[in-house]
Amino acid sequence: MGDIFLESTPLQEALERWIEKLSSEGKLNSLPSEKIKVIDSLGRVTAEPVIAKISSPFFHSSAMDGYAVKFVDTFGASERSPKKLKIGEQAVYVDTGDPLPDGFNAVIMIEDVNIVGENEYIEIIAPATPWQHVRVVGEDIVATDLIIPENQRIRPVDIGAMLAGGHTEINVRRKPKVTIIPTGTEIVEPGTELKKGDIIEYNSRILGSLVNEWGGEYIRHQIIPDNLEYIKEAILKVHEISDLIVINAGASSGSEDFTARAISELGEIILHGVNIKPGKPIILGWVRGKPVLGIPGYPVSAYITFNIFAKSLIYKWQGLDLKEPENLKAKMSRQIASTVGQEEFVRVKVGKVGNNFIATPISRGAGLIMSLVRADGFVRIPAMSEGIGSGTEVDVELIRSKGDIENTIVCIGSHDNTLDLLSNMLKKKYPMYSLSSAHVGSMGGLVALKKNEAHIAGTHLLDEETGEYNIPFLKKILSNKKIILMNLVYREQGLLVLKGNPKKIKGFEDLTRKDVIFVNRQAGSGTRLLTDKCLRELGISSRDIKGYEREEYTHMAVASAVLTGIADTGLGIFAAAKALDLDFIPVAKERYDLVIPYEFFETDMIRCIIKIIEDKEFREMVLELGGYDITDMGKIIYES
Amino acid sequence: MGDIFLESTPLQEALERWIEKLSSEGKLNSLPSEKIKVIDSLGRVTAEPVIAKISSPFFHSSAMDGYAVKFVDTFGASERSPKKLKIGEQAVYVDTGDPLPDGFNAVIMIEDVNIVGENEYIEIIAPATPWQHVRVVGEDIVATDLIIPENQRIRPVDIGAMLAGGHTEINVRRKPKVTIIPTGTEIVEPGTELKKGDIIEYNSRILGSLVNEWGGEYIRHQIIPDNLEYIKEAILKVHEISDLIVINAGASSGSEDFTARAISELGEIILHGVNIKPGKPIILGWVRGKPVLGIPGYPVSAYITFNIFAKSLIYKWQGLDLKEPENLKAKMSRQIASTVGQEEFVRVKVGKVGNNFIATPISRGAGLIMSLVRADGFVRIPAMSEGIGSGTEVDVELIRSKGDIENTIVCIGSHDNTLDLLSNMLKKKYPMYSLSSAHVGSMGGLVALKKNEAHIAGTHLLDEETGEYNIPFLKKILSNKKIILMNLVYREQGLLVLKGNPKKIKGFEDLTRKDVIFVNRQAGSGTRLLTDKCLRELGISSRDIKGYEREEYTHMAVASAVLTGIADTGLGIFAAAKALDLDFIPVAKERYDLVIPYEFFETDMIRCIIKIIEDKEFREMVLELGGYDITDMGKIIYES
Repeated sequence: MGDIFLESTPLQEALERWIEKLSSEGKLNSLPSEKIKVIDSLGRVTAEPVIAKISSPFFHSSAMDGYAVKFVDTFGASERSPKKLKIGEQAVYVDTGDPLPDGFNAVIMIEDVNIVGENEYIEIIAPATPWQHVRVVGEDIVATDLIIPENQRIRPVDIGAMLAGGHTEINVRRKPKVTIIPTGTEIVEPGTELKKGDIIEYNSRILGSLVNEWGGEYIRHQIIPDNLEYIKEAILKVHEISDLIVINAGASSGSEDFTARAISELGEIILHGVNIKPGKPIILGWVRGKPVLGIPGYPVSAYITFNIFAKSLIYKWQGLDLKEPENLKAKMSRQIASTVGQEEFVRVKVGKVGNNFIATPISRGAGLIMSLVRADGFVRIPAMSEGIGSGTEVDVELIRSKGDIENTIVCIGSHDNTLDLLSNMLKKKYPMYSLSSAHVGSMGGLVALKKNEAHIAGTHLLDEETGEYNIPFLKKILSNKKIILMNLVYREQGLLVLKGNPKKIKGFEDLTRKDVIFVNRQAGSGTRLLTDKCLRELGISSRDIKGYEREEYTHMAVASAVLTGIADTGLGIFAAAKALDLDFIPVAKERYDLVIPYEFFETDMIRCIIKIIEDKEFREMVLELGGYDITDMGKIIYES
Repeated sequence: MGDIFLESTPLQEALERWIEKLSSEGKLNSLPSEKIKVIDSLGRVTAEPVIAKISSPFFHSSAMDGYAVKFVDTFGASERSPKKLKIGEQAVYVDTGDPLPDGFNAVIMIEDVNIVGENEYIEIIAPATPWQHVRVVGEDIVATDLIIPENQRIRPVDIGAMLAGGHTEINVRRKPKVTIIPTGTEIVEPGTELKKGDIIEYNSRILGSLVNEWGGEYIRHQIIPDNLEYIKEAILKVHEISDLIVINAGASSGSEDFTARAISELGEIILHGVNIKPGKPIILGWVRGKPVLGIPGYPVSAYITFNIFAKSLIYKWQGLDLKEPENLKAKMSRQIASTVGQEEFVRVKVGKVGNNFIATPISRGAGLIMSLVRADGFVRIPAMSEGIGSGTEVDVELIRSKGDIENTIVCIGSHDNTLDLLSNMLKKKYPMYSLSSAHVGSMGGLVALKKNEAHIAGTHLLDEETGEYNIPFLKKILSNKKIILMNLVYREQGLLVLKGNPKKIKGFEDLTRKDVIFVNRQAGSGTRLLTDKCLRELGISSRDIKGYEREEYTHMAVASAVLTGIADTGLGIFAAAKALDLDFIPVAKERYDLVIPYEFFETDMIRCIIKIIEDKEFREMVLELGGYDITDMGKIIYES
């Protein structure tokens, strides 16, 4: 094992070494072509210029309903001396699209002729000009014309033009074939009955779907355990049929990591370890003339490294140019620290509030697939930077479109389960809009509104002096902003405990017990304020509560901590207890409101939100969550 | 037949009536769902919110290699009084990812422990904090979390997250099914041995491929002749399986147009005839609860009307929002007249020259599929407008991406067949760039450069006084611009005649013969100048030449006119004669140069063009075309 050493090559250098190797092995050229039917060629890439075999139209045809004539026969016709042409000889009836009889070279419109005799002659009062009202051969396409060039991704209209030009089959680039080999003794197929220690294998499906999106095909090998020989066997088995082999994971240098060994025993390792986060333990390898990637196991690391080292290959092999990702200038909503010496890819949510795009970093763990699902893009923090200050302008590499981002309602503040319902109902009824909610607590929400970083904030802040909810805080924090305060729900807060309440917790007074571990909410959240108020009223010091320092950001996270034994209890809403089947010891009923700045209140996005709040179906679903009182839902409580 | 009347409803009103009908029949809702495998769901649309069934991770696991401990056992450990924990009882070795044994709630990293005795104890010098180095249950996904909402188009990362959340199958929207029925006695399957009057059926493949692009499926009915009963039968036969039925064509009101009749006899016609060009004779129909479109037969009409009346449906049925097409402000490079009273969709090429986007109208015939292949977008001219002036700013609805347009070299000027080669080689060697060439003649090219509407112009203008090519014209027209004049080729111009020269044409003097019809090039082209110079030298009046007024824009169009009998001869280059197997009567050898403004000469795009001009493969292909002398290819002839 001792010979495995993880380098820390700068990304730029790693890319250069990768490209250099591929180029020196002749692996940067397009793949060979294959012949397919034109009608099946949508989205494929031409492997040669498509040249018209025939002209279109390929015969002279009438562009009007009328009579085909020879224009020399019409010389001298005028109102004074009309000319007669014998039908069937000098004049032949044609519908639009009909071919002109041989030798005929003009069409006179039906409305410009008189029929005389028993359908014997037409009479005309003006001469025809050569080729009038005739669609001539090659009007659209002349045989030998270039229809589409090599390396063009085929569109619907291209299919039409190729068929018109006489092609029924064409040569397109063969689809790049990527074989993905999932490895790991602990990983299991999705759908397997899970036992402790099992990890569901899904990376291969993310990477494979990316290959599909990029125009390639993927072959997913069955899962193989962490075993050097098995991995080597698998590589050799798929070698012939693959343009690129991907091994996921075992890319690191632990005792169970055999990928680097397997590659180096069969071929060579070009590089092991790149100076990026996440994604450091990537392996760039080469086995018997084919590129082999050892991709790290954490899903975010896998996604990022595969994009960096595989995407441009899949494009090049198809003869396509990989465009730069769409970029957007945005303002960082909060400070973000980063380790000096590593280039970091921070996932961010982006929202457009007023005229500014605001980027907010989301969870950074490499193991969090949901951080990719939720992300709108990436911000790169250079290796030499300590981080990015709040308010700094950054470049965001987008993974959602700018249009989608502009149609996203940014809701920052306190978490409540009804927000998830609201988000889903919005997407269902008004698919053009999305609701993105960030859970930073009530206070954080008001500050975000003040800084013009959100369209809506959810808040449930109890002013201890007056006993009043929210309004005193609005007056203090948002004194300079015209806002509307609308009630969403009243809800019950209480202590969440395991079903059956095994530790017999009755209230906050039990939190000081030796055998009770608490889980807290973050400072600035309304629930934390409520916790602290309750403790103060009971004269309990936070220092006497085990777990007071462990902070979670949502009710569901608190519920999950209780369910999984991280803590014995925590303060949260009834809906969270109900969702995870926990018992609930009521503590208080509180008012949860939405704060909406006046400037956004009349926008179409927010009007849709309000329509949903008024919707019967939504209200019934909220009641089903449990613990909610919707008496005042949608009522305007206060306007500044 | 008399009952078929083509209306001319304004587009906006037509759309409103269509939507109203669809809505009143409940046909604007999403389609029912179908269950599919998650791993096959890329690009499909969720038919319900996807809620996590299980948490991920679903067990507490170690985030480090080290020893799992209970944190209470570590209380009081310090450098002065280290603590020993019995391996196997109080401390259990775990690799990263291993589950924690029941009751254990912290991990101490391997580097922070000393093994003492015969692997009996670990010794630690600091206490553990609860859950340190532990990936807790639900860190990524908590059971009941919303993974993705309803109406979301599924991306690769969504597939990963759904699998992680315990789903192997999900409900997605059924793909909308569109049946396309091609009708027409004259239309034949692609690949058929063609006889005069046959028209290759390709519209169904364009419309069907559009359906595929939009996320639906298409069924292509076999071609049926223009026969009322057959059309009715076909509609009824596919009725059950289709969400939308499309009949192409027979949509007009001619004697062979049965589509409107068929629809009205089986159901109702909502509207027949919309005030747009192309696309007027569209039929919006309804048969037994299903929408039926009668789509006009010309390919451009079919494309435009199908986009207008079908696309939003296919999106709505999937629960997706149809985004507005990308728009671009551009400057019209020339005037374009339009019929008052009809909204016209003009196809344009767009190029970015300097900082301006320039839109140039291309051929307007509804029958020209190549006008769609070549187009970058549409400009709409409102019904009440007489047209658009040169230099006017217009909105272009893009069908190519803005990025592609920015990477397009705009070449305006004289036509030469080597430009097609250049275009194809560019796409082959540098797939990121395209060359778009517009053929307006040498003079037109110089004017385009002067007006900053092109990057390059091809020119072969002979100054009669000096006998010099191009330079005198540059000095006159482009006096205010720093330019570089580079030779591309010397080429032979001559009279093109049918193989064997049946009319025994020997030179320009034969053009005045009664039995000879000529085809000309447009004014301002170098070839036209050459024609006029030859005629002048021979003392021939253009009035004595039949066909002098018929102007074509390219050498290939002249060659095609000769080949198909429109004319007996025309002046053109040898390569055009060779391409269509015509005979060639040499008239002159001329110099064909490229003019490149200095400001573009150093751009990467133009550098790629020059690299191709220097490329051996390109030069060999030029020689193969025939009639070219490449002695000075790439040589700089003149700099201003």
